[in-house]
Amino acid sequence: MRIDIITVLPELLKSPFEASILKRAQDKGLVSVHLHNLRDYTDDSYRQVDDYQFGGGAGMVLMIEPIDRCISRLKAERDYDEVIYMTPDGTTLDQKMANSLSLLDNIIILCGHYKGVDQRVRDTLITREISIGDYVLSGGELGAAVLADTIIRLLPGVLNDETSALTDTFQDNLLAPPVYTRPRAYKGLEVPPILLSGNLPEIEKWREEQALDRTREKRPDLLK
Amino acid sequence: MRIDIITVLPELLKSPFEASILKRAQDKGLVSVHLHNLRDYTDDSYRQVDDYQFGGGAGMVLMIEPIDRCISRLKAERDYDEVIYMTPDGTTLDQKMANSLSLLDNIIILCGHYKGVDQRVRDTLITREISIGDYVLSGGELGAAVLADTIIRLLPGVLNDETSALTDTFQDNLLAPPVYTRPRAYKGLEVPPILLSGNLPEIEKWREEQALDRTREKRPDLLK
Repeated sequence: MRIDIITVLPELLKSPFEASILKRAQDKGLVSVHLHNLRDYTDDSYRQVDDYQFGGGAGMVLMIEPIDRCISRLKAERDYDEVIYMTPDGTTLDQKMANSLSLLDNIIILCGHYKGVDQRVRDTLITREISIGDYVLSGGELGAAVLADTIIRLLPGVLNDETSALTDTFQDNLLAPPVYTRPRAYKGLEVPPILLSGNLPEIEKWREEQALDRTREKRPDLLK
Repeated sequence: MRIDIITVLPELLKSPFEASILKRAQDKGLVSVHLHNLRDYTDDSYRQVDDYQFGGGAGMVLMIEPIDRCISRLKAERDYDEVIYMTPDGTTLDQKMANSLSLLDNIIILCGHYKGVDQRVRDTLITREISIGDYVLSGGELGAAVLADTIIRLLPGVLNDETSALTDTFQDNLLAPPVYTRPRAYKGLEVPPILLSGNLPEIEKWREEQALDRTREKRPDLLK
């Protein structure tokens, strides 16, 4: 899989892609992530990528021209399955969407910034608008990192133990059951005895009950 | 405001806090963000922070002891309003929650990793569990960065123009209206004439209608 991220702040995205699972996935050749600085697609000496809104109002808007140039250059090199714009008014990301996006070959992710992008970008260049949640970020960069992370960890071979993703919260519309590790007792707090019993079918049953109870209590909407 | 983030991957969080608005907010003294490496709170030479789950199953679990030590040391230095754990089964972050968190003085954010943290951490040390959305990340670090970003940009003085946050998507349960900037025409695509009219009351009216239309179309749930 190949992910191209277009941003005015490539430096913000450096460390998330150079650490942990996202780095290992790239080192293994399972995904390649390319950061594109929108300023490299301007033709004036100020490298201007944004301007004031027509009609007045606070906040700058990213201009269509550098975005169009960058996307056009990428598209000339290969086909893209989706050109995604990260925006709080996009479709809200969930695990099902992450699963389906993880099956694609090439995607572009455009990070909004300031007050957003010129509407004509959204009308003509974007195939999909995604939000990571009902809140506003200072830019689309963290949203792009979140989206890339949810997708990349699902690619076969990325996680050490493939069953690890299959037992995640949300994969079966249930929250995950509680987990415990050493020590058995810590300042008087004990691990539930069932988990120390060695009785695997009973442990499995307990975990299913706990997952269901927790989902009923915290997220009954997932059970509908 | 002071934000302490506890993580096994402080290096992942470096660049988001060293760029753009999050950096400027710290430079201006409006917020201080401190990253704590959980491995610094271990007492064995392997600096082990995780172990296998009791009861078997894939994925490692963060142990209670280093987390307890780190949180205790921080609490000995000052009072904290909240000790937050980032987890996909927490309460889903929204703009209202970000607004209320932005009024606090000191918060700790604990990033989960691998299969999560020992349940006893959640039962005894955590005051609030927050999810950034219904999807699974490879760790809580990006969630912590998202949470910090949503909060920090709301602190008075962080955004250059304070009205900029007030007109954001979600602040009034409406999506933002479309925005346009130069050029007026690009490859035959025109800016809506109303925005070039100079008639501010009419522009305001158009924007309100557009915001309402867009919300009705994309997110009718926000209007309920």
